[in-house]
Amino acid sequence: MTNKNYLERVENKLDEFLPNSGALADSMRYSVLDCGKRFRPTLTYTIADMFEERLEHADSSACAVELIHAYSLIHDDLPAMDDDDIRHSKPACHIRFGESQAILTGDALQALSFEIIANDNNIDPNIRIKCIQQLTHASFEMAQGQSIDMAIVSSSVDISVLESMHLKKTGALLSCAVKLGAIISKKCSPKDILILEEYSKLVGLAYQIQDDVLDMLVPDNVLGKRQNSDQKKNKPTYPSVLGLDKSQSTYKRFYENSIKSIEKLSVNANQLIELTNQLQSRRF
Amino acid sequence: MTNKNYLERVENKLDEFLPNSGALADSMRYSVLDCGKRFRPTLTYTIADMFEERLEHADSSACAVELIHAYSLIHDDLPAMDDDDIRHSKPACHIRFGESQAILTGDALQALSFEIIANDNNIDPNIRIKCIQQLTHASFEMAQGQSIDMAIVSSSVDISVLESMHLKKTGALLSCAVKLGAIISKKCSPKDILILEEYSKLVGLAYQIQDDVLDMLVPDNVLGKRQNSDQKKNKPTYPSVLGLDKSQSTYKRFYENSIKSIEKLSVNANQLIELTNQLQSRRF
Repeated sequence: MTNKNYLERVENKLDEFLPNSGALADSMRYSVLDCGKRFRPTLTYTIADMFEERLEHADSSACAVELIHAYSLIHDDLPAMDDDDIRHSKPACHIRFGESQAILTGDALQALSFEIIANDNNIDPNIRIKCIQQLTHASFEMAQGQSIDMAIVSSSVDISVLESMHLKKTGALLSCAVKLGAIISKKCSPKDILILEEYSKLVGLAYQIQDDVLDMLVPDNVLGKRQNSDQKKNKPTYPSVLGLDKSQSTYKRFYENSIKSIEKLSVNANQLIELTNQLQSRRF
Repeated sequence: MTNKNYLERVENKLDEFLPNSGALADSMRYSVLDCGKRFRPTLTYTIADMFEERLEHADSSACAVELIHAYSLIHDDLPAMDDDDIRHSKPACHIRFGESQAILTGDALQALSFEIIANDNNIDPNIRIKCIQQLTHASFEMAQGQSIDMAIVSSSVDISVLESMHLKKTGALLSCAVKLGAIISKKCSPKDILILEEYSKLVGLAYQIQDDVLDMLVPDNVLGKRQNSDQKKNKPTYPSVLGLDKSQSTYKRFYENSIKSIEKLSVNANQLIELTNQLQSRRF
């Protein structure tokens, strides 16, 4: 199955899981549907596919991870946080629906995310519990990472602080997307899970450093959000600490190491290698 | 077991479940510990006790419900929402820690709430899933209720709109506190659960109408928050729609009906009746 099929699949499933009526339905659908790269659900589906798991068993996990991601972007964009007005090339949720509704839209998406896993009767309750354990903890760590991010604005920090912040802010959920794919795949061994944990940690760091670099280099219309937004907010980033060249070589090295890390998986990892290469060549 | 024992128990358990270090630990502990009436966990423990369930089986559910309640208060108090500066007779979370950290504190508490149920190895995974299904849905409905509440500020609404808003905003979580107590109690029959659902709906409405009335009648130092805050924000409330006298008689009738509704439980309901009477005579 190709990435394109995953994108269609996750779009249809998100559409099914989101409410069609009632308070917050419009703002939830606006913030989740027809936007975003769907990188996290693609990771979950790719892992499930590699281990020959039925993709319908990955639907709730893939969508749940994407809902957590969508909620985090809504809250990150708020005036009290990063104060960004554009997201996915359209007005941010709080610009379109107002600040109070945006806060509540994020809150509702977080609750819905765990609910769709809990309600997935295709999955054994023991497996559902494992998935919820991982996702709740990733969501908790993501909030911690954003808390550190807000606390170090205008500060001078060393690279170890940035790395630990990014591991929580971006790495935890990316890593979770991989782990959920592994947990729901019956053929994935404990050794495979350890390998995938290492892979997801490396990809998570590579992805975030690359984000910092793209924020500097790519114009608004390609990025889908404001260029140079980190610098304008005086946020410490990899390029501001390491310089642009070293940041680029660092994230490329992390991507290369992530690909090396999956060589010993018990299944053919070509699909995951291809996805990782696609990520490395992304421009937004 | 008396209420006082429940209060000590929930305080100790919350203390255990909350993080002691790391980002957001201080603001989470500030917003959860040593404050609040603990009415929702008391309900969960009371139900478990009535059905002779071991209280340690109710700990994660009781605390999870309280964490959701605490998160909702933090977000409700934000400047973009109700803009309240005092909560539990001390500065609101965003006054003490700043707005961005308060948003994230609420976000982290919501994630932690589901995590502590998912991680409770004393409870069968099937039961944990049922509890998480109930609590995620209640949390989702609570966000919807608050969304309606924000949308009708300065509007003229009839009592049916207020009632449906309160059923989501306050009723859903109160009802959930009762249902979780029932779900984890092995001796609680499906018929008992139906009776307790009806009870919790009536108590939820009574509680919220009473809140509206207390907001008008009780001074700040007893209430632990600003008196007349609804009226100052031009929020429609039961007293503003029905008048004070009729609101008082309405909530008293709901409390009376809630007590009648539990007459047919398969166990002695005296403990729950006593708790309901305590609620009815509360002043904050």
